[in-house]
Amino acid sequence: MNASQLKTLLDRVAAGHIATEEAERELLDALRERPFEDLGFARIDHHRAVRQGFPEVVLGLGKTPAQVAAIATEIVKRGSTLLVTRASEETFEAVKIAIPQANYNAEARVITLRQQDVAAGRGTVLVVAAGTSDLPVAEEAACTAELMGNTVERLYDVGVAGLHRLLNERHQLSTARVIIVVAGMEGALPSVVSGLVSVPVIAVPTSIGYGASFGGIAALLGMLNSCASGVSVVNIDNGFGAANIASLINHL
Amino acid sequence: MNASQLKTLLDRVAAGHIATEEAERELLDALRERPFEDLGFARIDHHRAVRQGFPEVVLGLGKTPAQVAAIATEIVKRGSTLLVTRASEETFEAVKIAIPQANYNAEARVITLRQQDVAAGRGTVLVVAAGTSDLPVAEEAACTAELMGNTVERLYDVGVAGLHRLLNERHQLSTARVIIVVAGMEGALPSVVSGLVSVPVIAVPTSIGYGASFGGIAALLGMLNSCASGVSVVNIDNGFGAANIASLINHL
Amino acid sequence: MNASQLKTLLDRVAAGHIATEEAERELLDALRERPFEDLGFARIDHHRAVRQGFPEVVLGLGKTPAQVAAIATEIVKRGSTLLVTRASEETFEAVKIAIPQANYNAEARVITLRQQDVAAGRGTVLVVAAGTSDLPVAEEAACTAELMGNTVERLYDVGVAGLHRLLNERHQLSTARVIIVVAGMEGALPSVVSGLVSVPVIAVPTSIGYGASFGGIAALLGMLNSCASGVSVVNIDNGFGAANIASLINHL
Amino acid sequence: MNASQLKTLLDRVAAGHIATEEAERELLDALRERPFEDLGFARIDHHRAVRQGFPEVVLGLGKTPAQVAAIATEIVKRGSTLLVTRASEETFEAVKIAIPQANYNAEARVITLRQQDVAAGRGTVLVVAAGTSDLPVAEEAACTAELMGNTVERLYDVGVAGLHRLLNERHQLSTARVIIVVAGMEGALPSVVSGLVSVPVIAVPTSIGYGASFGGIAALLGMLNSCASGVSVVNIDNGFGAANIASLINHL
Amino acid sequence: MNASQLKTLLDRVAAGHIATEEAERELLDALRERPFEDLGFARIDHHRAVRQGFPEVVLGLGKTPAQVAAIATEIVKRGSTLLVTRASEETFEAVKIAIPQANYNAEARVITLRQQDVAAGRGTVLVVAAGTSDLPVAEEAACTAELMGNTVERLYDVGVAGLHRLLNERHQLSTARVIIVVAGMEGALPSVVSGLVSVPVIAVPTSIGYGASFGGIAALLGMLNSCASGVSVVNIDNGFGAANIASLINHL
Amino acid sequence: MNASQLKTLLDRVAAGHIATEEAERELLDALRERPFEDLGFARIDHHRAVRQGFPEVVLGLGKTPAQVAAIATEIVKRGSTLLVTRASEETFEAVKIAIPQANYNAEARVITLRQQDVAAGRGTVLVVAAGTSDLPVAEEAACTAELMGNTVERLYDVGVAGLHRLLNERHQLSTARVIIVVAGMEGALPSVVSGLVSVPVIAVPTSIGYGASFGGIAALLGMLNSCASGVSVVNIDNGFGAANIASLINHL
Amino acid sequence: MNASQLKTLLDRVAAGHIATEEAERELLDALRERPFEDLGFARIDHHRAVRQGFPEVVLGLGKTPAQVAAIATEIVKRGSTLLVTRASEETFEAVKIAIPQANYNAEARVITLRQQDVAAGRGTVLVVAAGTSDLPVAEEAACTAELMGNTVERLYDVGVAGLHRLLNERHQLSTARVIIVVAGMEGALPSVVSGLVSVPVIAVPTSIGYGASFGGIAALLGMLNSCASGVSVVNIDNGFGAANIASLINHL
Amino acid sequence: MNASQLKTLLDRVAAGHIATEEAERELLDALRERPFEDLGFARIDHHRAVRQGFPEVVLGLGKTPAQVAAIATEIVKRGSTLLVTRASEETFEAVKIAIPQANYNAEARVITLRQQDVAAGRGTVLVVAAGTSDLPVAEEAACTAELMGNTVERLYDVGVAGLHRLLNERHQLSTARVIIVVAGMEGALPSVVSGLVSVPVIAVPTSIGYGASFGGIAALLGMLNSCASGVSVVNIDNGFGAANIASLINHL
Repeated sequence: MNASQLKTLLDRVAAGHIATEEAERELLDALRERPFEDLGFARIDHHRAVRQGFPEVVLGLGKTPAQVAAIATEIVKRGSTLLVTRASEETFEAVKIAIPQANYNAEARVITLRQQDVAAGRGTVLVVAAGTSDLPVAEEAACTAELMGNTVERLYDVGVAGLHRLLNERHQLSTARVIIVVAGMEGALPSVVSGLVSVPVIAVPTSIGYGASFGGIAALLGMLNSCASGVSVVNIDNGFGAANIASLINHL
Repeated sequence: MNASQLKTLLDRVAAGHIATEEAERELLDALRERPFEDLGFARIDHHRAVRQGFPEVVLGLGKTPAQVAAIATEIVKRGSTLLVTRASEETFEAVKIAIPQANYNAEARVITLRQQDVAAGRGTVLVVAAGTSDLPVAEEAACTAELMGNTVERLYDVGVAGLHRLLNERHQLSTARVIIVVAGMEGALPSVVSGLVSVPVIAVPTSIGYGASFGGIAALLGMLNSCASGVSVVNIDNGFGAANIASLINHL
Repeated sequence: MNASQLKTLLDRVAAGHIATEEAERELLDALRERPFEDLGFARIDHHRAVRQGFPEVVLGLGKTPAQVAAIATEIVKRGSTLLVTRASEETFEAVKIAIPQANYNAEARVITLRQQDVAAGRGTVLVVAAGTSDLPVAEEAACTAELMGNTVERLYDVGVAGLHRLLNERHQLSTARVIIVVAGMEGALPSVVSGLVSVPVIAVPTSIGYGASFGGIAALLGMLNSCASGVSVVNIDNGFGAANIASLINHL
Repeated sequence: MNASQLKTLLDRVAAGHIATEEAERELLDALRERPFEDLGFARIDHHRAVRQGFPEVVLGLGKTPAQVAAIATEIVKRGSTLLVTRASEETFEAVKIAIPQANYNAEARVITLRQQDVAAGRGTVLVVAAGTSDLPVAEEAACTAELMGNTVERLYDVGVAGLHRLLNERHQLSTARVIIVVAGMEGALPSVVSGLVSVPVIAVPTSIGYGASFGGIAALLGMLNSCASGVSVVNIDNGFGAANIASLINHL
Repeated sequence: MNASQLKTLLDRVAAGHIATEEAERELLDALRERPFEDLGFARIDHHRAVRQGFPEVVLGLGKTPAQVAAIATEIVKRGSTLLVTRASEETFEAVKIAIPQANYNAEARVITLRQQDVAAGRGTVLVVAAGTSDLPVAEEAACTAELMGNTVERLYDVGVAGLHRLLNERHQLSTARVIIVVAGMEGALPSVVSGLVSVPVIAVPTSIGYGASFGGIAALLGMLNSCASGVSVVNIDNGFGAANIASLINHL
Repeated sequence: MNASQLKTLLDRVAAGHIATEEAERELLDALRERPFEDLGFARIDHHRAVRQGFPEVVLGLGKTPAQVAAIATEIVKRGSTLLVTRASEETFEAVKIAIPQANYNAEARVITLRQQDVAAGRGTVLVVAAGTSDLPVAEEAACTAELMGNTVERLYDVGVAGLHRLLNERHQLSTARVIIVVAGMEGALPSVVSGLVSVPVIAVPTSIGYGASFGGIAALLGMLNSCASGVSVVNIDNGFGAANIASLINHL
Repeated sequence: MNASQLKTLLDRVAAGHIATEEAERELLDALRERPFEDLGFARIDHHRAVRQGFPEVVLGLGKTPAQVAAIATEIVKRGSTLLVTRASEETFEAVKIAIPQANYNAEARVITLRQQDVAAGRGTVLVVAAGTSDLPVAEEAACTAELMGNTVERLYDVGVAGLHRLLNERHQLSTARVIIVVAGMEGALPSVVSGLVSVPVIAVPTSIGYGASFGGIAALLGMLNSCASGVSVVNIDNGFGAANIASLINHL
Repeated sequence: MNASQLKTLLDRVAAGHIATEEAERELLDALRERPFEDLGFARIDHHRAVRQGFPEVVLGLGKTPAQVAAIATEIVKRGSTLLVTRASEETFEAVKIAIPQANYNAEARVITLRQQDVAAGRGTVLVVAAGTSDLPVAEEAACTAELMGNTVERLYDVGVAGLHRLLNERHQLSTARVIIVVAGMEGALPSVVSGLVSVPVIAVPTSIGYGASFGGIAALLGMLNSCASGVSVVNIDNGFGAANIASLINHL
């Protein structure tokens, strides 16, 4: 039972559409469920939607397709929205057999199934990407934010070496409620964006680059040392995490 | 002219308390000012309050006391709230001569002077610290957030090796609108806190520790790799930055 | 001749079941054997069981299947229990031809053959894993500890971002004599577990994670900097080493 | 009320030396105490002795002398044994005023006060140090282990470049129940010691060395990569942590 | 004899102002001089001006004041322009005794004495600095470039978090022949500047920053990974090196 | 419209070969074009040739063949010279279909198509490579510099362990206007070359080497710490960047 | 003409077996040859045998099979001994076509062809390896040392965790003139060996290990920080380099 | 009793200058001495001279002056040559009281006292230093090599940016039996020197430099990756270690 299901139940009680005994029984049933399901190799946290506003998300990395499919099945069975990140084609094959209506975004590498348990955010989440190569991470962020109930806009290929491309879109920057900035190489874009707006900027370093980019370390350090004080940072390539934080903010 | 001064002016126009000609002249005067003041060694950004909701903050690190005092004087002269971070006692001596009403918090190492240009935040910013040694950074965050118009609560010495100290204060965690978590050593506290709440957590690694803590790198990496997806991170010891982001969120 | 074979012999002497001359000859034969077997590319340490309580273990990494098979054959020939870690399927193929009764655990990647030379440990070794992706390393630890004569329990997928999953199993934590905690990402679980118990915790960082996890460095540093003082650490992904230490402790 | 105070009470009840009502009242009083004392800047964990066998230890690093003195006073007031690590002379001055009977070991940099709440360990903890320069860390370990109720032996300056010095003392190695090995530079001593014994070895890298020792990283990496499988590792210079683990093992 | 002295001599020969015998003798004398002066602890390279357009520069770091003074004396004795970088006040004291006309710039930490042996550059070298804290390095660059015969302009405190400060000065950027950009923290300024101009940009990371700036590594990596392809980089804090390269380019 | 097209137009106006109305219309058309083309996943910067002297270059890394082909088509359509770096065979296949006259250099991994929009450089760019293994990077530099309008010479396999091979070619060194030095391993060659010449040296570390070369870090650090002050550095394996800077210098 | 060819010539002159005119002509011919052969992509150093006692060695890494074959052909044509290191099977295929008598050692990955130009060393070079996995590097060293004219002995699998295996072979250690010690993991073996002998020890770290061995860095640091002062170190996996140095020493 | 004392005794026996009984007694006395002296904090290895050709050397780093003085006294008492490295002035004060005839070299920071127990080396050890700042390390090497019985020559300030200074002294290079090369910054000098000679080169990186020299790491990596195969490396600033190895080689 998630927060909106709970609210619906209470509303029905208040409206006299359901007897209190019936409501009591439904609530007790919900409470009797263990807060998590133990599959042996995984414990699925079914109260997470209540506690944190969105059901448990499955990190595909390091799990076998069979494990992901089993976890996904449990989640969907409870009526929760499904999000699997870092999912390979092979993993999607396994999930699809169990959940035929699941979707796969190959660029973002996410498996999704939207259900009725997600509240809408208040404003727009803007996803900005420095270069074409940063798109897979940017799309992971954008897809996640959308699934979590947010209006999402995209602004891509506006790296700092050609400032006019970014300055041209200042209006779009100024209307967002929270901004995710995805950048590899020197990771300078979040500083520049943050200097132009008055909303929180969440920076995502990407592993794009070569040589002394060291798989995203250069971008990560650049963002951590941003001279613009409105920038916080998530792990390299962690588009999902950035979107989750943006969504938390956008639901405040 | 900052956002609230502007609003006041427009309200007075709307209310007929001021002639449009007079208002026009005031606005033109404001626009005629250069958006920054060039002191040779520094360009003070006087439009920052308009653009980003809080006047330019002075990072004391690497500036001479005389330079800080000169910059601070310009800021205060315009009626802007003053915040100098990483300020030594010596720097405060120099500032105090120019601005006698300025305050110094020795633990947080900040110089402050509150003026009438800061809007109030909407909820509570909670500052959580893992250990006693993390207090200077936590206090930098708390003082900054207060100066920026937020209601601030503190929850200190609740490290993960004694979970009951934290679990005891779950009520305080659940009532905050945004949480700053300050921790050194292994930096595990933000993950645990984030798992208990549904609001954004901003993690500040501190340089507290020894040996393989590498001046805060261990804590920083721990926070970036948090298995809790609501955590974003700022630079090591950057209490100010965390507070600034928390304040941006709390003013949304 | 290992420690238990030696004890048996002496008991038989004491009980008069064997003549002292016969016992003397057996002992001299055992001592005449070289303490190691030189295969050219490897020297197998046949006295290790006497010296350290468990026969020499074969690290499969960096050895050809043929080399592993030859070493394994020598070990089994002497009646010693066989353990090959980091063994590929291909290596197992080669070993199986020489030792048909050998077993392979594909998840843990170990080849085993239990013989009569291992003493039982005194209490329970509990293996705790933070996430599903940490299972291969956790299973390497669990299989090793079992083969070394210990009672082993498993507690999986109890990462710190969902504390209730761990707190739910406090009883299991409190009944173990030594605990192995396997975790990737920020590696915070050992600190939390150690704060809940009064037995030694051996932490195993895993290479699970991405970006700034740097192949397990983040988890390793987190564990080395644990604010809980009952945690010692082994190399990244070294489930075997953790189990070996746990077994040494559990045999004290 | 710590574990031994509790046991004494129950024994007195069993022996009829105290009325059950009296015992009940004492127990209730103990339970009524908050499990920690909130000093504002610190929460002292008074139940730690019950939970983990030794009262809370104060890490002096990063705390002001006044803070340490206040915490120490609370600990001693409850009848708990006091241990402050990384304590400067200046800190000891402050503690001494509040607790005149406290002791200071300048080489180990620990402040101690033994009280009646510590149980005796079962065997000997042997502290081995590679070189003369490693003595401060070795002494921190030895003093801690002694305070925690263990019989401690020392074996110093037996580095691997002069093996005969170590091999000469094999008897001492073979009679210990747990061994702490402290070494800087290449950190090879734990591997060699572990190869000679069948008990757990806890390795402490020290920051002794220069150039490519990188403040103890070389020794730390050497120990983590030990080819001897009975070695676990604690943080650089963490003599206290090693002793705490050794004591946990020695009390099993 | 440097290039301009040589040219003068040949001109005088051509003009008949000096007899060929006299010129020959002067040339032979010059050739007879060893190309370097061996002071035991240093070999001064007197032909460097011929080979590379500017006399040998003395790096003050790691040399005693007495050593610097001795080397400086030899250089000045030959009529060469003197430049000592990384010079402490104490070093200047020693040099001043030997060379009373030498100058000291305390902010840039350089000792200089201009003589008649330096050719003028062709255009303007612009030195741009991101923040007030970067000024010592920027001034080392500016002083060096001036001493090497270049027209130098300065543009300070134009960091990327307040882009309008930089965009305001686009004219100054567009008129330089080569640009030195000095920045600490995330080091993003060179990318932005290079995107606005069509001349070479030499980036100098500074050690300004804290935490994850790692003494300038973050800025260095940011610059090496610049997405603007006109940026080359010198060592952290190496204002002198940047100026030397800028001067080589400006003399082409 | 690039700089040379503009000049041609104005010359034609001056010569009376075109009516001013016609010229005005052409200019207005050019200005009416957006300065960049938005392909969704990329914004192509068509004014870059005007701003920086060479059209936008496509970094092939991290882009799909289809994306590169689409971008390349837009560039060529405007009459701009095409350069794609880090291009795989597969990428070239895709480009070739759209632009049959495009060329591919497999060693340098660049796709090129020269058009009429590039001005000639003034002197010679010399590309020096330390070893045979450095050739792919050296060729990327050489091809880029040629395409950008420069006369290019090559001097390969002249590493510092056999100095006579380099000293033999001093004439070639002395006649270049700017020198690119490509080296892996210890990266010492730029220091030696720079000591022999009076022109700027641009150093390119390569990822060639093994063990402690760390994918080019050793060479990179060697070059950044060059004791020769005429050396600036670009990213590891960044032959293109070095050539672009060399070309900027050679066009001054 | 190498050193021994030169000596033979002079001996023949001294013995009157050749006319001085004839000898002069031969010498002039040799001098007329360029000291290196320029193949475009490589300059083969034909005087290296004269200068350094062994002909130029070909590092196979990063060269195409065709390039290696061309270089090898030039070397063999001059009667020089051939050594190609890091050679793949594929490279050997190419070399074999040109030089059918060339040999390949697949474990050591070297291509060799011994000719008459190598002088014998004076004593024995002992190659010691810690584990079976270190054998490829140890064999590269052993093959190289043999080809360079040295008597070579091998002592394998004598790691420090089983000291008796090493101490058993002390006689072999004491009779070597120079010792190469190859070890991965913690790299402690060179310290132990060096403490037992009075000859130079050359340490070769290998990339064998996992987790915090970081591809050989742990072993490298261990060796650089050896507490035994007779140890010098070469690059990770550089068996060839160690053998070359050992051979230089053994030919003194 | 060291090796030369032993030889003298046997010669006297052979010559009949001493009775065999007397010699036997002297030998037995020597054997009866423990091979090391246990001072509690240090075990002095009195057989080291026999085993390794030079008595135990005292590393001053991390030892108190009193500890060094006590160790030094024991060494000198046995007639062994004294060498203390990394000795501060303060340490020398303490040693001098106990051993008035001891000498101190303040630049090299060594305390020495030559006695009659050191054999002469066979050739010359040449110490080459790149810059004036490298002299303290170079002098540590030179003083050590002299004390160990070697003829030592010095060649200072011959860095690779001014090659003619080095090439000018090729004769000196060619007459050495072993060469120590000391260099900071990019550490390129050993490669260049090794390419010019056919004797072993021992490279010592120094911590001289700034910024990306990282306290000598850049030089260390440069030397480990030397493209000249005759170079082996010791720890940063380890002049003593280089000299010890050079002396071992020079005594072969």
